[in-house]
Amino acid sequence: MKIKVIAFDADDTLWENEHYFKGVEDRFCELFEEFHPQEHVRESLNKVSLANVPLYGFGIKSFTLSIMETCLHLSETSCDKVLMGKVIELGKKMLTEPVDVMDGVEDTLKYLQNRYKLILATKGDLMDQERKLKKSGLLPYFHHVEIMAEKHEANYSKLITQFDIRPEEFLMVGNSLKSDILPVLNIGGNVIHIPYHTTNIHEQADADIDNPRYSTVDNIRCILQLMQERP
Amino acid sequence: MKIKVIAFDADDTLWENEHYFKGVEDRFCELFEEFHPQEHVRESLNKVSLANVPLYGFGIKSFTLSIMETCLHLSETSCDKVLMGKVIELGKKMLTEPVDVMDGVEDTLKYLQNRYKLILATKGDLMDQERKLKKSGLLPYFHHVEIMAEKHEANYSKLITQFDIRPEEFLMVGNSLKSDILPVLNIGGNVIHIPYHTTNIHEQADADIDNPRYSTVDNIRCILQLMQERP
Repeated sequence: MKIKVIAFDADDTLWENEHYFKGVEDRFCELFEEFHPQEHVRESLNKVSLANVPLYGFGIKSFTLSIMETCLHLSETSCDKVLMGKVIELGKKMLTEPVDVMDGVEDTLKYLQNRYKLILATKGDLMDQERKLKKSGLLPYFHHVEIMAEKHEANYSKLITQFDIRPEEFLMVGNSLKSDILPVLNIGGNVIHIPYHTTNIHEQADADIDNPRYSTVDNIRCILQLMQERP
Repeated sequence: MKIKVIAFDADDTLWENEHYFKGVEDRFCELFEEFHPQEHVRESLNKVSLANVPLYGFGIKSFTLSIMETCLHLSETSCDKVLMGKVIELGKKMLTEPVDVMDGVEDTLKYLQNRYKLILATKGDLMDQERKLKKSGLLPYFHHVEIMAEKHEANYSKLITQFDIRPEEFLMVGNSLKSDILPVLNIGGNVIHIPYHTTNIHEQADADIDNPRYSTVDNIRCILQLMQERP
C-alpha cells in the first residue's frame, strides 16, 4: 500500500517542548521549597493539571492557570504577591522561548517533501502552535497545518477524508502513543513512533503493539530508510 | 458578481459572548469594591488585558490570566486566597456556560445553506470555540469551520484560496469592524456588518465606510433580503 500523506506531530517530535514545561515545574518547586517538600509541590501541580485538562485543554496558558491554582492550594490564607507574580512571569516567558528544532528534522522533511504530501498535525493552543511553527522555520515543508483541539480517532478520520485518501495511505509520525499512535492504528492508518526521553503525564499510555502498520525508531532520520523498505 | 461562499463570525454574531465577559468583569469589580473604586478596577483590568493580547491572544483562559494579574496589581504584599480562588472559579464557570444562539440565526442559516457554501470563521481559543459550536447545535449548517489565531488579511486570503474562489465571490458576516469587516474589504471581499450592542475594547475600530461591497444590517435575518437584491 502506497503512503500518500505523512502527518507529523510537532511538540517533542519536530521540536523540543516538554523540557520547557519540566523547567518551569522545577522552578515552581524551588519557589515553594521553604514551605513544602519539592515532591509534594510537584504532585500537587500534576494533580491540578490533570484535573483541569477536560476544561482547559493543553498548552502554556492552561499550564499557567494550573500552576496558579496550585499556588492557592499550597498557600495559607493569603498568597505571596511576589511569588504569584513570578508564576505569571514564568508562564509569559514560556510563550516567548526559542524553538529548538530536533536533530535530523529539517533534512528528513527536505527529502520527503517532494515524494509525499506532508502535513503538520498538532494539538494545543492555536496561537502558540502558530508562533512555534513560524519560529521553527519549518512551515515551507508543509502542504497543510492542522491544529486539533484533541487528537481523537474522529479528528484523524476527518483529516484523512479531507485529503481524499484511504487510511492505509496515511502515515502518522509522533512521540505520543496516546495521541499520535493508538488512535491512528485504530482507524486503519500507519504509524511510526519516535519515543521522546520524557513523556508528559497526560500522554502516558501503556502499549505493547504488535501490528504490521506500526514501527518505532529512535531518530526521525530513520524514517527515510523505513520508507525505502516499503513495497 | 455572484457570491459563492459566505463566512460567519461566531462570537456576538451567531451567539452571545461579550455579555459573559462583561458579567465576570462586573463580578470582579464587586469583589474588590471594599478596597478600590469599581472604575479603577475596571480600568486596571482593561489595561492588563490589552497589554496581554499580543502574548496571550483572545479567549477565556487569556482573560482569566489577565484577571489574576490584575488581582496582583491591586493587592498589597499578599493576595487573599479566597478572592483568588473565586477568580479561578469565575474563569472555569465561563468555560461551561450555555450557548445562547441569537435571534434569527438558525432560520437564516437554514435558508442559506443550500444556496451557498457556508463557513464559520472565528478566532480565539480552539477548544472553547469547538465547545460552543457543539453546544449551539449549528455545526450541521457549516461546510467548513476555520478557527483562526488572528483575523488578519493574510488569513482571509488563505481561506479564499483554499476554497478556490475570487475575493469578489466571498462574503463575510460579522459584528467586528476590525476583525470581520475591514480586513475582508481590504482584500476585495464583500462584507455585511451586524453591529453588536456592546463591542469588546479589543475590537473597537472607527470606520466611516463608503464602499459598494459593504452593507450594514441590524439583524441577521436582513441578510436574506440583501442577498435577494443582489444581481
